[in-house]
Amino acid sequence: MTLREIGRGAPVLAFDVGGTDIKSGLFDADGTALGMRRTPTPPLGSEPATTLIDELARLSGELRAQHPDVVPAAGGFVVPGIVDAAAGIGVFASNLGWRDAPLRALAAERLQLPIALDHDVRSASWAEHELGGARAHDDVVVLIIGTGIAGAILIGGVPYTAGGYAGEIGHAPISEGPPRGEALLCTCGAYGCLETVASAGAIARRYAAETGATPDGAREVIALAGAGDAVAARIWDEALDALSLALAQLTAVLGPQAIVIGGGLSRAGDALFDEVRTRLAGRLSFHRMPQIVPAQLGDDAGLLGAALHARELS
Amino acid sequence: MTLREIGRGAPVLAFDVGGTDIKSGLFDADGTALGMRRTPTPPLGSEPATTLIDELARLSGELRAQHPDVVPAAGGFVVPGIVDAAAGIGVFASNLGWRDAPLRALAAERLQLPIALDHDVRSASWAEHELGGARAHDDVVVLIIGTGIAGAILIGGVPYTAGGYAGEIGHAPISEGPPRGEALLCTCGAYGCLETVASAGAIARRYAAETGATPDGAREVIALAGAGDAVAARIWDEALDALSLALAQLTAVLGPQAIVIGGGLSRAGDALFDEVRTRLAGRLSFHRMPQIVPAQLGDDAGLLGAALHARELS
Repeated sequence: MTLREIGRGAPVLAFDVGGTDIKSGLFDADGTALGMRRTPTPPLGSEPATTLIDELARLSGELRAQHPDVVPAAGGFVVPGIVDAAAGIGVFASNLGWRDAPLRALAAERLQLPIALDHDVRSASWAEHELGGARAHDDVVVLIIGTGIAGAILIGGVPYTAGGYAGEIGHAPISEGPPRGEALLCTCGAYGCLETVASAGAIARRYAAETGATPDGAREVIALAGAGDAVAARIWDEALDALSLALAQLTAVLGPQAIVIGGGLSRAGDALFDEVRTRLAGRLSFHRMPQIVPAQLGDDAGLLGAALHARELS
Repeated sequence: MTLREIGRGAPVLAFDVGGTDIKSGLFDADGTALGMRRTPTPPLGSEPATTLIDELARLSGELRAQHPDVVPAAGGFVVPGIVDAAAGIGVFASNLGWRDAPLRALAAERLQLPIALDHDVRSASWAEHELGGARAHDDVVVLIIGTGIAGAILIGGVPYTAGGYAGEIGHAPISEGPPRGEALLCTCGAYGCLETVASAGAIARRYAAETGATPDGAREVIALAGAGDAVAARIWDEALDALSLALAQLTAVLGPQAIVIGGGLSRAGDALFDEVRTRLAGRLSFHRMPQIVPAQLGDDAGLLGAALHARELS
């Protein structure tokens, strides 16, 4: 994991909570991340919010014990799903299990610090705008494509949230409903969501379902497609088509100057970006073709955004 | 046409230019529209911008001759297509033929008045927010469904324009590309645009193409569908499905509090609104269901918006 800097300011704790793992770090007064690491998200059971906060407290205790001279003035953490950042509430997260959980208040009490809570991808997108790949543009869509697909919309450089409901591009439908959509039932309960076809998770899962093989993620399916495996080629082609369709819709509706793509799938590099640019351009007519750019902060963007939010409180 | 009022202020001229007709009116100091009428858009030929401005000058002359005591301090006009309102440029309009036309400067010189130029549907949407159906909400999508489908996005009560490129919901693709999309070639040059299936124009055109009949617009096709005509029922069903799919995408991406639907198709009333609400709700899961509300200003919204814009200059 690359160490990155957020500039001078108060020391802060930061956490990026995902369905699979939690990234944590302590940023010092120079803005350098200390003890940045990734640990598995524990099973959250029937009390997901308090179980998660217990884990953040444990990680916080370890970081502070390792760096006793760096005393955090605030903490920031980011989670997936629907987040009402203004109210400090985790409204819904399909992979983590809470509904209307007062995450910010729970964390502030447990860590005894002022706490900022935000949505992981909005936070990552904001960090890309402050520090990374979206710096040059004000009207930007950011897509993080991994296990699922999350998105965020920056308008005039400011995240547009709609009370936490905006940016759910992974859960925008890209197909007809059932019967065709029946095969595309999403974990969220709807049919034909973009992430049932175009996420890295879906690419690996669909290949496994059709062949009985267990590929090492979307990366292996894409490599197999390049090597002439017909099933892999079709699944990768359908993912690229669905993604290009969704980007064409976003282009028509929002007219962004740039679309930033990050997350695990973005590591496919030219195999993804060249194809998406060509297919998107082929779908547009009078529309303004957005720049399609890779995220620059990589996996750390959410954590850096959490640290920047914590700095705002300190 | 109902007379409507925009409140007290300077007298202003207003024009709403469409592919089929031009609405014009002179608003007096009380904000009452005088001589509001609708005249056919003349053929614009090879010099579409100057031919249009000549027609606006002719209409202006008639209005001023009829009401010599009402002296306009400014004029506002709105046009379809891609409009860069800040620069006063008509960037592109598929039905009217111009590209990068300096419409505002041409009109200001010809009418000898300060002139405001805006996009017809953005202007109508803003009027719905200032005076009509969107007053209660800040994050709103407005769709005007007629010959084509135009849209506008209000964020925090302010139109979001992206240099004129935002809100082209009618030209967002809702289907796969060719071969299936081949039948759905849009006038804009792209395939599978929403308006090739769900506009009032498309509903009538598709019915005519399949049956050889010449229905009296979408209204007659919807009535035939209700009376058991299988072709009409399928075409209307496909239009409702495509519209619901597009609204589900907008809901996921933008999380609007309300979606306002106006234009000719909205006169279908419950046959449209009840179906769209049911089908949209069936497509959503954790998303926030927006209110689906009819536009209140009807056909006059664009003209009222043009008059409000002119007032800002006076």
